Amino acid sequence: MENHNPDEIRVRLTHQREYPVFIGFNILKNERLLQSYVFGQQVLIVTNEKLASLYLAYLEIAFKEKQCDTVILEDGELFKNQHSLSIIYDKLLKGNHHRDTTLIALGGGVIGDITGFAAATYQRGVRYLQVPTSLLAQIDASIGGKTGINHRLGKNMIGCFYQPEAVFIDLTTLNTLPLRELRAAFAEVIKYALLVGGEFFQRVYSVLGSGVIENSSQANLADIVRVCCSIKVDFIHKDEYDRCGQRALLNLGHTFAHALEVCTGYTRWLHGEAVAIGLYCASLLSYFCGNLDKKTVQLVDDMLAFAGLPRRIPVEMDLNAIYAALFQDKKIKQGKLCFVLIKEIGNCYLHEDISESLVWSSLKTALENRSFMS
Amino acid sequence: MENHNPDEIRVRLTHQREYPVFIGFNILKNERLLQSYVFGQQVLIVTNEKLASLYLAYLEIAFKEKQCDTVILEDGELFKNQHSLSIIYDKLLKGNHHRDTTLIALGGGVIGDITGFAAATYQRGVRYLQVPTSLLAQIDASIGGKTGINHRLGKNMIGCFYQPEAVFIDLTTLNTLPLRELRAAFAEVIKYALLVGGEFFQRVYSVLGSGVIENSSQANLADIVRVCCSIKVDFIHKDEYDRCGQRALLNLGHTFAHALEVCTGYTRWLHGEAVAIGLYCASLLSYFCGNLDKKTVQLVDDMLAFAGLPRRIPVEMDLNAIYAALFQDKKIKQGKLCFVLIKEIGNCYLHEDISESLVWSSLKTALENRSFMS
Repeated sequence: MENHNPDEIRVRLTHQREYPVFIGFNILKNERLLQSYVFGQQVLIVTNEKLASLYLAYLEIAFKEKQCDTVILEDGELFKNQHSLSIIYDKLLKGNHHRDTTLIALGGGVIGDITGFAAATYQRGVRYLQVPTSLLAQIDASIGGKTGINHRLGKNMIGCFYQPEAVFIDLTTLNTLPLRELRAAFAEVIKYALLVGGEFFQRVYSVLGSGVIENSSQANLADIVRVCCSIKVDFIHKDEYDRCGQRALLNLGHTFAHALEVCTGYTRWLHGEAVAIGLYCASLLSYFCGNLDKKTVQLVDDMLAFAGLPRRIPVEMDLNAIYAALFQDKKIKQGKLCFVLIKEIGNCYLHEDISESLVWSSLKTALENRSFMS
Repeated sequence: MENHNPDEIRVRLTHQREYPVFIGFNILKNERLLQSYVFGQQVLIVTNEKLASLYLAYLEIAFKEKQCDTVILEDGELFKNQHSLSIIYDKLLKGNHHRDTTLIALGGGVIGDITGFAAATYQRGVRYLQVPTSLLAQIDASIGGKTGINHRLGKNMIGCFYQPEAVFIDLTTLNTLPLRELRAAFAEVIKYALLVGGEFFQRVYSVLGSGVIENSSQANLADIVRVCCSIKVDFIHKDEYDRCGQRALLNLGHTFAHALEVCTGYTRWLHGEAVAIGLYCASLLSYFCGNLDKKTVQLVDDMLAFAGLPRRIPVEMDLNAIYAALFQDKKIKQGKLCFVLIKEIGNCYLHEDISESLVWSSLKTALENRSFMS
């Protein structure tokens, strides 16, 4: 029976969601607020040892009336993998967690990403809350539903988009954040400043220029968190699934950063530190593409230096390996690498099909034994 | 700094999607149609050995201009696991598949579920096409975006909702389907008939009553596929994420079936065969709840028998283990098991918090050495 005009049934789906991002002090002590976002009788908190000792008790108090289980993962990007994910699945299944359970990510970006992915994939999706405790997670990873784990062949290669029920940003937790992590987060703050420019760029520049980060006032930091979250939410509204090139702008510096992280097995730098080097590389690439002048590259470099961040590729690293790792990145279309470039401060864009030689020039110039300004 | 009125930013997301389900003969030979749903330059086909020998060549011809890779998995529910998923991820990463790649599931429900889950989670989601080759996958698993793998502690415990770009139901492939699989699929056909009742129930009853399934005409079968797909699409329109109790009705017989499958390590029955026993159990439970009379239970049993399907729990099975497995099911709310029950033919409903003793009575009565009608 030949039939080249098959029947066709259309499946039509509409889906609307919205969720809040709460930003303030002592949110972890606000039991009522936390409780109002857990609907079932079961909770699983995912955290690491250090954060458990600092903050787990608050959540346990808030959810003492529920079945409240805990998974303590090892700390660090190295543990954002299938093994940690399996630990969460096993805990959920052995604890008989049902589809109305709620997962709570108490921690930085690693905890948030992996917990979100576990929530996205346990029984085809259960609710989860983000309680980011690092500055980096508060201004970036906890908002927008990017979840996932690393694969030995690439960072964040396995994951999905899955939005939380709510994000609770307790600024009080920044008091216990190690200085190195606070600094690393400023790489993302500088990224936002480069993306939006204007008054926010000036403010970040002056906060960084006026002295050491650790001395910036709580109010200053709170203000920076609020603006960064708003910027991120704006980008997500334009492009939830990172498909039309808007959300991709948030990846300024990240294509280089991911390659650097892969090539060092996620152990040498904190993610933000790799982003700092990546932002310098992206500035250089923007320069080689004829967008930026040397002075602006220097400005970016200065801001990263004020924040006490690394900006150069160590000489002992294999540039060929970094270059190969760039092509494992997710930002590839029709076989061409897409880079986010800076046209001017406050004006970034996605450049598709960039010339390989310019990428090479940027990598070489970013080596720590090379001086760009001389 | 105390602050019990934190700032709040709202994240608002709207998402609309629609996709076609094509039903007809010789669709696999319709290169133009297949090609029109692949947008990038890369394709990965996932199938098993037997189907590869029968149908892979058609897809390879359609996508000969692209990078067209293939993963051949072992056949069967036993291989719907993390290991098979890893094989797909590795192939994608080693083949440098980017976010604009398209996965194609060429096979039955196992291939479709696992390929869909790989697509949902590779690089936070890539496109995929369903090309179901079994009757069961054509009328059920390929439509609606339920994807996933099994966990040793429960069937379909890991997975997510992720819709395909298109579903291509080539009815010609049913010509090569083993009789046992054809019969097994009729458990789902009977399920649909019980759900909607009326004219469709009469038709299925008369097709089954009039003789052996393998002799039913192609036109008859094509017609049944079309109606079943329409029924499924209607349920998905009402409840994409299986949250409001509508889509859950499609699980008639499945709570029992999943427990039976778990307790036999997915090896004893085809999924449809377990569903057949599950439908008999669900009829008994409906009877014990006072909904159905004996005559209707007998009617269901007769239809399953006409289709040559198993309907009884083997005596050597441990009912305690089956009972425990029921509580691993995803259809649980606030700790209470939800069962889909038959009120009358064409009128099923979700019964929350069913009495344990009635479940026990149903399991015991479904044992193969027990006669219900006597």
